[in-house]
Amino acid sequence: MNKEKLVELIRSRKSFLCVGLDTDPSKLPAGVSTLEFNKTIIDATREFSVAYKPNLAFYEAMGREGWDILEETVAYIGHEHFTIADAKRGDIGNTSSYYAKAFFETYGFDSITVAPYMGKDSVSPFLQFQDKWAIVLALTSNEGSKDFQTQKIGEEYLFEKVLRDVASWGTDENTMFVVGATKAESLAQIRQIIPNHFLLVPGVGAQGGSLQEVVKYGMNSEVGLLVNASRSILYASSGADYAIAAAAEAKKMQEEMAVYL
Amino acid sequence: MNKEKLVELIRSRKSFLCVGLDTDPSKLPAGVSTLEFNKTIIDATREFSVAYKPNLAFYEAMGREGWDILEETVAYIGHEHFTIADAKRGDIGNTSSYYAKAFFETYGFDSITVAPYMGKDSVSPFLQFQDKWAIVLALTSNEGSKDFQTQKIGEEYLFEKVLRDVASWGTDENTMFVVGATKAESLAQIRQIIPNHFLLVPGVGAQGGSLQEVVKYGMNSEVGLLVNASRSILYASSGADYAIAAAAEAKKMQEEMAVYL
Repeated sequence: MNKEKLVELIRSRKSFLCVGLDTDPSKLPAGVSTLEFNKTIIDATREFSVAYKPNLAFYEAMGREGWDILEETVAYIGHEHFTIADAKRGDIGNTSSYYAKAFFETYGFDSITVAPYMGKDSVSPFLQFQDKWAIVLALTSNEGSKDFQTQKIGEEYLFEKVLRDVASWGTDENTMFVVGATKAESLAQIRQIIPNHFLLVPGVGAQGGSLQEVVKYGMNSEVGLLVNASRSILYASSGADYAIAAAAEAKKMQEEMAVYL
Repeated sequence: MNKEKLVELIRSRKSFLCVGLDTDPSKLPAGVSTLEFNKTIIDATREFSVAYKPNLAFYEAMGREGWDILEETVAYIGHEHFTIADAKRGDIGNTSSYYAKAFFETYGFDSITVAPYMGKDSVSPFLQFQDKWAIVLALTSNEGSKDFQTQKIGEEYLFEKVLRDVASWGTDENTMFVVGATKAESLAQIRQIIPNHFLLVPGVGAQGGSLQEVVKYGMNSEVGLLVNASRSILYASSGADYAIAAAAEAKKMQEEMAVYL
């Protein structure tokens, strides 16, 4: 999916919500399989969201079966939502090329999250595919983001150098960045460095980030935001009414987003 | 596998060779399947090596079938070699826990390579399993290692801070580090920071690093080295004699290692 279509989806659905499919087998309602749960969540949230982000770890932990479920889930999402393989890959060039092939071609994802530590030749292979995207970790929402990401390299933080350097390797048509909502005040400074790139923003909802703050500091003229919610939607109810509860939670977020759009 | 057993294997086999199973379907001899190739390479190199390192990207690129091949390959290796899932994972805590469960329990690997960018809570989940290991990227052998890893944070390089901090999160019984052989002269300084940890050293062979230099600067009293070779062994011959050629290449490396042990 290219940027034009993504922005169009956001404007027409009045939503920049990404639903994180961190489907945890231990949290499913009784008698519901992972695939059934995913399909139900997708149907319940389709009209309120523009993107889905399966978290690969949950599928890998299931062994082979997990990969079947992943493939069927991506197919079920279809082409009217942007799909993100939350895989956080990053390896030497020929290996990254294999990951790109796996996620873009075998599974058909629009994008994959990528870790920047190994540098340019580990990120560039993800930028060689038409209408496919690398979403590179910059400033994450977890506690450990302080360990290295916010260390100073000369006058700037490591994550700022990551933003600046990675942005120069691709374009805002094939690169996005992960920036956690728990650091909303950092978004103003981040927009100085990358005014035009889309940001994938986790941490709103269960992790406590504020949607209003993210919009205030992070939105640009093409919206430029995909705000992810996972647990707050998936596990809005642990009972048989989980689809209704998930739809209500997604709708609530979409309605707040509509105000800002 | 614990450290004591690993050191014992190294001493008894007079080898610290790790064979990287970066099995590329496009490079296999005619008529040979990936699984058959892996099994043949393993049998040809067993007596000369102490570890095997499947590179996950190559298996993921094959879709579901790749995961079957991976599982059968790990089972075929058995318990007299240290196994490394070269996956370079790293995510927020509960996600990293799922990866740890997938690779240590579902697939039965002894260790997994881990990217440090997301900090302590992304690495720690891999340190919670008895006799299992996190092998954390510090200084890699690719060109892109200059982009971030060798940037200065205060008085030290980022990779040095990674070594120092990550070493404090675990012990030399559950943590190793990736240090590329193309930076052999850095090993002396690295040994100042982490005298006792095992290092996984790629970049000898195809990438041009010198085994002698790695030993000179990196070996410690418990050897402390696993030197990886992938392409130079796997593709020593592209013909029907690939097993013989792989064995000869592994034996050559083992014989050089025996001199240093």
